[in-house]
Amino acid sequence: MTETLKGIAASDGVAVAPAYLLVEPDLSFEKKTVDDVEAETARFSKAVEESQAELENIRKVAAESLGEEEAQVFDAHLMFLSDPEFTGQIDAKIKSDAVNSEAALDEVAQNFINIFQSMTDNAYMQERAADVRDVSKRIMAHLLGKELPNLASIDHEVVLVAEDLTPSDTAQLNKKYVKGFVTDLGGRTAHSAIMARSLEIPAVVGTEKITTSVKNGQMLIADGLDGVAIVEPSDEQVADYKKKGEDFAKQKAEWRKLKDEPSVTADGKHFTIAANIGTPDDLAGVLENGAEAVGLFRTEFLYMNSSDFPTEEDQFEAYKKVLEGMNGKQVIIRTMDIGGDKHLSYWDLPEEMNPFLGIRAVRLSLKNKDIFRTQLRALLRASAFGKLGIMFPMIGTLDELYQAKAVLAEEKDKLVKEGVKVGDDLQVGMMIEVPAAAVLADQFAKEVDFFSIGTNDLIQYTMAADRGNENVSYLYQPYNPSVLRLIKHTIDSAHKAGIWCGMCGEAAGDSTMFPILLSMGLDEYSMSATSILRIRNEMKKLSTEELADLADKAVNESLSNEDNIELVKNLMANK
Amino acid sequence: MTETLKGIAASDGVAVAPAYLLVEPDLSFEKKTVDDVEAETARFSKAVEESQAELENIRKVAAESLGEEEAQVFDAHLMFLSDPEFTGQIDAKIKSDAVNSEAALDEVAQNFINIFQSMTDNAYMQERAADVRDVSKRIMAHLLGKELPNLASIDHEVVLVAEDLTPSDTAQLNKKYVKGFVTDLGGRTAHSAIMARSLEIPAVVGTEKITTSVKNGQMLIADGLDGVAIVEPSDEQVADYKKKGEDFAKQKAEWRKLKDEPSVTADGKHFTIAANIGTPDDLAGVLENGAEAVGLFRTEFLYMNSSDFPTEEDQFEAYKKVLEGMNGKQVIIRTMDIGGDKHLSYWDLPEEMNPFLGIRAVRLSLKNKDIFRTQLRALLRASAFGKLGIMFPMIGTLDELYQAKAVLAEEKDKLVKEGVKVGDDLQVGMMIEVPAAAVLADQFAKEVDFFSIGTNDLIQYTMAADRGNENVSYLYQPYNPSVLRLIKHTIDSAHKAGIWCGMCGEAAGDSTMFPILLSMGLDEYSMSATSILRIRNEMKKLSTEELADLADKAVNESLSNEDNIELVKNLMANK
Repeated sequence: MTETLKGIAASDGVAVAPAYLLVEPDLSFEKKTVDDVEAETARFSKAVEESQAELENIRKVAAESLGEEEAQVFDAHLMFLSDPEFTGQIDAKIKSDAVNSEAALDEVAQNFINIFQSMTDNAYMQERAADVRDVSKRIMAHLLGKELPNLASIDHEVVLVAEDLTPSDTAQLNKKYVKGFVTDLGGRTAHSAIMARSLEIPAVVGTEKITTSVKNGQMLIADGLDGVAIVEPSDEQVADYKKKGEDFAKQKAEWRKLKDEPSVTADGKHFTIAANIGTPDDLAGVLENGAEAVGLFRTEFLYMNSSDFPTEEDQFEAYKKVLEGMNGKQVIIRTMDIGGDKHLSYWDLPEEMNPFLGIRAVRLSLKNKDIFRTQLRALLRASAFGKLGIMFPMIGTLDELYQAKAVLAEEKDKLVKEGVKVGDDLQVGMMIEVPAAAVLADQFAKEVDFFSIGTNDLIQYTMAADRGNENVSYLYQPYNPSVLRLIKHTIDSAHKAGIWCGMCGEAAGDSTMFPILLSMGLDEYSMSATSILRIRNEMKKLSTEELADLADKAVNESLSNEDNIELVKNLMANK
Repeated sequence: MTETLKGIAASDGVAVAPAYLLVEPDLSFEKKTVDDVEAETARFSKAVEESQAELENIRKVAAESLGEEEAQVFDAHLMFLSDPEFTGQIDAKIKSDAVNSEAALDEVAQNFINIFQSMTDNAYMQERAADVRDVSKRIMAHLLGKELPNLASIDHEVVLVAEDLTPSDTAQLNKKYVKGFVTDLGGRTAHSAIMARSLEIPAVVGTEKITTSVKNGQMLIADGLDGVAIVEPSDEQVADYKKKGEDFAKQKAEWRKLKDEPSVTADGKHFTIAANIGTPDDLAGVLENGAEAVGLFRTEFLYMNSSDFPTEEDQFEAYKKVLEGMNGKQVIIRTMDIGGDKHLSYWDLPEEMNPFLGIRAVRLSLKNKDIFRTQLRALLRASAFGKLGIMFPMIGTLDELYQAKAVLAEEKDKLVKEGVKVGDDLQVGMMIEVPAAAVLADQFAKEVDFFSIGTNDLIQYTMAADRGNENVSYLYQPYNPSVLRLIKHTIDSAHKAGIWCGMCGEAAGDSTMFPILLSMGLDEYSMSATSILRIRNEMKKLSTEELADLADKAVNESLSNEDNIELVKNLMANK
């Protein structure tokens, strides 16, 4: 029977395909004694062989669809599976204790996991614990006659269904077959949603119950434009939504024509549309979508994809690559935002009760100046190769800003004395994401070259609602008049001090937010590269004149998030 | 050698006495085999007997100094110690395994703890696990020849020294002997600091290293006026600080004379000074200190000191008692603020990554309307017995306020229909503690009868700094211009709408904050009862005229927390 679920539109487009459930089966078992231990070891061997054949196939499919590098993770699994030390111990346990294979597998695997995990200062061995867990799960599934889902083994078009997707799940997605996804949990700013937009896969998140509403193989529509999922649609619905998807694809093709055009309003005013990137590899998409700048280059990847702090040289190379790749266009690089929900295996940070209210980003940099100095030196050296803006995240007080600027000035002096070339047009700016900084934007504006408003954090602190917590997701309101007042005050303060103001949160590429920000005169809009052409197209439709009083209405007349959604909806109705 | 440590002044006054270290000794041991098991069981029996004698003495001292009720916890310990099931198993283990007493005790105790703890739905049995842990620790200490600290056994004047004090530690403090305390951790708003002010015990917190700087019995000065601790002071210092303590005591005696005087400025303007209370038992202190109202009656005690949700009747009795006790003066009762750092054994709330940004206070009430309705009915019924204000905590959006008010109106209608009397002059207000509410105070002011600013939370959200996290305590800045701007906007908005505005955070009783708040025209100052007379005395010294431009300077000219401390210091220099 057809069932329609309402969710959150997380990534544009429409997908129509059979559902593929990425849901772990129940692998619980009963411990039993067995009479015929020979038959039991044979049963165990059979499960191992089946697991091996299955893994080899997954590896093959993964190599074809995702590439050789992504497939190599399965080599480690295969190697462990053929380790006689592991299977031998299980055989021995079945014989000595006369227990069933499930119980023997579970106990031996747990021992291995404990040993690997106890080597806490060895990241390699810790990863081996994850391998043992994966391999044991696979054998257990075969023993119990259950099937494990596997992203890499998908070889036909599907709409993926899961409770939630982890970053490593999304990294394994093959765009060729995964046409869209629908999840129970998550919001527009969850990692999986951001990744979906970057891969241009339609996505509906936060449906609350898709995993229990749809079965493997049932037809499923994911409408990422309106945030709707339809299980077992009628033939008419299938046809309608396919058409909706095609219309959207046509629209996108139209947008593509804007690639080399400037970003201007209907009355010819120019505003900068920039891209947010996470690694130098994202540059291709940035150029392909005609970004006028990089408004946010996050540097966490340097720290996360590493077994130790990145060297000055490694950082320099990464920064230089992006600056050169942008060919004279501005690149804003943010100093590290580690802490909060981002931790490093090689950096033992304190456990915190409320990590989002803890020591993260520039707070951590200022308490670990050696690590900070290394990053600043790499940035300063790279500044000679393009138009760089250095941006400090999570600044909350002027004192923090003074400190960060002082360290930067010291490193610059040192480099100049060493005869190293530093860019002449280097700009220094800060994120506005702590409410205190937004409230005092007039004071901060006198001390920097630019602001960039980080809405993801600004909203969560202003509303006192963790953006990852489903129970308070109703309070995570981008259009709440309080949030908009702080944004407006920030932009007004920047302009009064003669500096430019950008935004690099998800809100900058949001169609409802965009007219309001334009009305406030925000100078730069930095977003996922895949949103750029859509927003450039929006801009063409709007004149600054007709938007003149929108901002005032949004912050003074509107009483809620919903009032502002309505306000923009009415404005755009005749466009 | 004399050592001076700088900490945070957490509670006024000066104490000079030998240090008493509330620090757990190292109770680690080696597992050994023993040859003479009879000698070993005798050794064990001796440790049990010593523990018994010690516990009996502690119980006696506790009963004398703290009262019979507080002493009863030790009966449970004594009972367990004489349980042959427990000591018998240990005897048996020593004999059968030929191991030393420490190893046998550890293993048997752990078994008992595991069994008790596994009964997760039985709060009584869970508490027994804590008893086993306490008793085993005591026997272990005797086996190892170590001494356990014990608050209840203190029978001479001391300055208590600890890493931090738990609420249960502070509950056991005997004011007769504990003259002050000094801790490594904590800030002015930590529970132990609040408790110290309520007990009127001088306290210095956040010294970082007092536990390693002082030894048991060494002379120690705790100067809670200036936040200084001095280890092994010179004779001259002892004399100076004793005098400082006496001067302070004299000053307090002066303040006592203000008990029945109104709270007025030097130029005769009246502002209300009210008290914050946690239970009806706090009423005595409120009356004794001449409070003009109760500005915050926290209702969490009803939920915390209980094994199930409090009934409507229990709540009604508690609210009525306070309303009647205040004899016509206003009492503001805040609906429950459970969640965040406050959890109930009988309410299974979701685990949250950032509980301070999670589902707490009114958010929880609105999702659990049955529990909310019970509390509102009790409040409405109590309103007939005095001048009640009902206050909703953690309101972040107008929609939440509308919802809360709607539920209140429904319950009021029902009661009226049932013929139950409800007070005529009932007021309905809200806390301003979520930054969004402060920013939109002009919108909220039209919907309530009063505001009360909750600075503890407002500061932590505005600065994005957990108030319990030592690593970001430098960012928990009450006088930061951003916080003061939000407070000023809230007060101005209240007055423009014709409603009154109070404050019930710790900041209301803070001497540096007070002149700034007075300059802003804050109507009501609600604080620990013990701060009331000090602030009434401050008020007498200040005229609203001389304060006219202080608020403007504090929010516009000052650039930091420190600037505002300086500003007030200069103002008060000639007072």
